[in-house]
Amino acid sequence: MNSTPDHTTVTVLGLGRMGSALAAAFLAAGHPTTVWNRTPAKADALAAEGAVRADTVAEAVTASDLVIVCVLDHPAVQALLDPLAGSLTGRTVVNLTSGSPEQAREMAAWAAGHSIAYLDGGIMTTPDGVGNRASMFLYGGSREAFAAHRDTLAVLGDPVDLGADAGLASLYDAGLLGLMWSVFGGWLHATALVGADGVTAGAFTPVAVRWLTTVSLFMDRYAGQIDAGHYPGDDATIDVQLAAIEHLLHAGHARGVDGRLPELHRELMAKAAAEGNGGDSYARLVEAFRGR
Amino acid sequence: MNSTPDHTTVTVLGLGRMGSALAAAFLAAGHPTTVWNRTPAKADALAAEGAVRADTVAEAVTASDLVIVCVLDHPAVQALLDPLAGSLTGRTVVNLTSGSPEQAREMAAWAAGHSIAYLDGGIMTTPDGVGNRASMFLYGGSREAFAAHRDTLAVLGDPVDLGADAGLASLYDAGLLGLMWSVFGGWLHATALVGADGVTAGAFTPVAVRWLTTVSLFMDRYAGQIDAGHYPGDDATIDVQLAAIEHLLHAGHARGVDGRLPELHRELMAKAAAEGNGGDSYARLVEAFRGR
Repeated sequence: MNSTPDHTTVTVLGLGRMGSALAAAFLAAGHPTTVWNRTPAKADALAAEGAVRADTVAEAVTASDLVIVCVLDHPAVQALLDPLAGSLTGRTVVNLTSGSPEQAREMAAWAAGHSIAYLDGGIMTTPDGVGNRASMFLYGGSREAFAAHRDTLAVLGDPVDLGADAGLASLYDAGLLGLMWSVFGGWLHATALVGADGVTAGAFTPVAVRWLTTVSLFMDRYAGQIDAGHYPGDDATIDVQLAAIEHLLHAGHARGVDGRLPELHRELMAKAAAEGNGGDSYARLVEAFRGR
Repeated sequence: MNSTPDHTTVTVLGLGRMGSALAAAFLAAGHPTTVWNRTPAKADALAAEGAVRADTVAEAVTASDLVIVCVLDHPAVQALLDPLAGSLTGRTVVNLTSGSPEQAREMAAWAAGHSIAYLDGGIMTTPDGVGNRASMFLYGGSREAFAAHRDTLAVLGDPVDLGADAGLASLYDAGLLGLMWSVFGGWLHATALVGADGVTAGAFTPVAVRWLTTVSLFMDRYAGQIDAGHYPGDDATIDVQLAAIEHLLHAGHARGVDGRLPELHRELMAKAAAEGNGGDSYARLVEAFRGR
């Protein structure tokens, strides 16, 4: 293995937009980088930047200690790696392919059975955010592999350690994307609302972004309430917010804005109030989302 | 009038939790502060801290250049101020009572008819956040009044200038609360999701809060797209997110988590895709919220 502490050799399997961005970040950081893609032409640009192009997957995985996989889906990962289990023994596989927590745990069990160190990751950015230390890369799985390769993985973005459960990166990824869609939905609804009265998205959005900082302070406070299972409405109760949401629904209705999103929030709040919990904080609504 | 540039006299009408917090902030900053409440006993604590207690609303409004109103609702504001229009002429009224944009504009028209300078405000914090410069206070209305009293109002929190339309503070307020409920919903859904696999809210929330910073960068980018009416999906298309949300729905379903919120997001995305806009960015969905 041609590795030094600062220049761990890396292999990237899969050169779609994201895989190519990963390989380019390793190359830019000076890591000897081997690349492979089912359609070899996708490696041309990276080869021109100094990547070693492997002709076969077997050649690619034996070129490096650290093998990064970023392909279409879980079956594609299995099809690639399963025949090469023997060659991967003693190496580290970091799977950045989107999939479910269950699929990640299945891969971790398979890897453990072949003495392959396994990390499952979630990439919380678009390809143009790869290589930016502000981007989060979530990792769960082998403690030893994470400790050994943390610095190398930091080339891609900030490595966030989720612990030994290989399923958590996918689960966090899904949950965080859900949060993103909710933020987008709330922001777009509000943008449509103020837009009806002539406010541009460019004027409204900086205020909305700043508001997220205030909302974050409530999230921090409410996280403790959720873990304690106790939701004191000291700052603002569900009852107060049920009254306030009528202003939003009324203003939206008067402007012809689609009300399904705030109506769902009202429905969740009203159910909590009907169950006698209207004096609690909004954090109580975690119970409305939980499975029974 | 007993005012100096640094110690503008202030009157606060309405001493509920929020009104009391406003008066306390003015007192703490050294402003001579007159207070009034329908139930006089609510002024006791403030009087002990140095506030002047007015026996009548008329006495209260003539004590200061700047009259802050924070009562139950719009009819209560009207009932208080309408009989005192003559006494208010030449003064500034800052209405921080929750209400609709239409009610605020009605008040502004009434004030203009009596040569009363009028600002309508939105308080984007809970009472315990009053006096913190990180808290946003939104103001729309008289340009002269805002310029004259900006520094005094800064005692309550950072004054955010929304321009001459007195209706905008209420409209932004409603929209921003809608954004907050959406953030809470997305975060609580995700907290329930990861919680099903043993992750505490305390472990998940810092990652979620950090993720909001990344989401904000997209909002900044997409705001320009919305104002341009052009939504290039360079970074991530609706089609890609429609595929990704299946992971979330599947993971939630497997854990018995209530799926109504992500299902609504999927419905909005699917409609845009069915209309031939699946290659656009998520910003396209503003059109799904807009009135026709």
